[in-house]
Amino acid sequence: MTGEAHSPFIRKLSAFVVLSESELAVLARLHRRRRTFAAGQDMVHQGQSAQTAYILSAGWVCSYKIQPDGARQIVDFQVPGDFLGLRSVLLRTSDHSFEPIVDIEAVEVLAHDLLDAFAQTPRLATAILWAASRDEAMVVEHLVGIGRRDAGARMAHFLLELGSRLALVGMGSKKGFDCPLTQYHLADTLGLSAVHVNRVLRQLREHALVTFRNGRVSFHDYEGLVKLAEFDPAYLDQAGPLLK
Amino acid sequence: MTGEAHSPFIRKLSAFVVLSESELAVLARLHRRRRTFAAGQDMVHQGQSAQTAYILSAGWVCSYKIQPDGARQIVDFQVPGDFLGLRSVLLRTSDHSFEPIVDIEAVEVLAHDLLDAFAQTPRLATAILWAASRDEAMVVEHLVGIGRRDAGARMAHFLLELGSRLALVGMGSKKGFDCPLTQYHLADTLGLSAVHVNRVLRQLREHALVTFRNGRVSFHDYEGLVKLAEFDPAYLDQAGPLLK
Repeated sequence: MTGEAHSPFIRKLSAFVVLSESELAVLARLHRRRRTFAAGQDMVHQGQSAQTAYILSAGWVCSYKIQPDGARQIVDFQVPGDFLGLRSVLLRTSDHSFEPIVDIEAVEVLAHDLLDAFAQTPRLATAILWAASRDEAMVVEHLVGIGRRDAGARMAHFLLELGSRLALVGMGSKKGFDCPLTQYHLADTLGLSAVHVNRVLRQLREHALVTFRNGRVSFHDYEGLVKLAEFDPAYLDQAGPLLK
Repeated sequence: MTGEAHSPFIRKLSAFVVLSESELAVLARLHRRRRTFAAGQDMVHQGQSAQTAYILSAGWVCSYKIQPDGARQIVDFQVPGDFLGLRSVLLRTSDHSFEPIVDIEAVEVLAHDLLDAFAQTPRLATAILWAASRDEAMVVEHLVGIGRRDAGARMAHFLLELGSRLALVGMGSKKGFDCPLTQYHLADTLGLSAVHVNRVLRQLREHALVTFRNGRVSFHDYEGLVKLAEFDPAYLDQAGPLLK
């Protein structure tokens, strides 16, 4: 077993499948091409056909779409262990852009690397399909949030989801997590103005539910926040490996 | 080669990968358990852990989430060739419900069937990951639509997307397509009231762009509608097989 066995990506896939030594070796070989990107440096441009995906090792990234009128909709954030642009590899053209929020480390994965890995271990294909399904479930929740939740529940749901995702890779707990996002990120994610984001965060703080300050999200009343957001984490499917 | 080689599912995957005889045989074996469901009969309940997915052979299905307050958000529609509940198989609990809009035919696929198929032909795993990525790209577009498009552009984009998806399986063209959806489906999809849906459809008709009447969507000015919606179909990735 190599050092990569403890990468966030492998930790995350292990929530779905108990990986064998040989599967870990295949995954380790996917980790060869290490790259770093500076905060604010676009990685994949919407419309580009690059056929390269990344697995994020350290740092935070946001994926977004720019509408023709210039408005930005943030689709999701990626945290360590997440794929960036898996869709771009398979769909041949990127339907969105990625921007590192802080300096990041990522591993470059080419389409044929993935095909090779799938040929060597089909269970790995299933695990990656699991991760993609989970990503889709998050976008669905995000859609439901914008379509059907009020601003307070939307914000609470978003912070709880991030906390759960980070807990899976050892970077968060029910106490809270470090968070480099700005109020502009939150606004473009939740479909609110920055002023509205400010007001919602103040209300959540005044109700002693959660504080987001100085790069740290602190949950004061985790269960109260769960109740406000009607947050059911089942869609994140983190209850332990299905494939033994 | 069997009759299943011409199923909508195989037609759809063929947009991504040129399937060999042996891959077609593996796919044909996935088509063994045929089921029918009546319109309005729920197939998968939100929160159920069923481990069964379906491939839709004929008819239309809608997937939706009910919020705790009872509001319904339609996440997507499935048309022939689409998976239903692939996420439910992999995520162990269904994050949404499926309801047939008309009487449908579907093939039941169990988790271990998929694993077996992947083991036999890893390229098939990639093709199914492609289909899942495409589904996710559609949810992303839907999110951007609700977050950032006005009602007219949102409706136009939705009808153009359906037309393209149906064209892929031989059921639509730039002239139009048969469509069993009601104005309530459109409202719960686009985050509009039924009255607003009515008004938007009337405006699109009065501008001689598109008519939706008597179960038929008729495009009168396809390019005009594309322009209004700023519709770029690249995310549907239908330009022809990548894997030869």
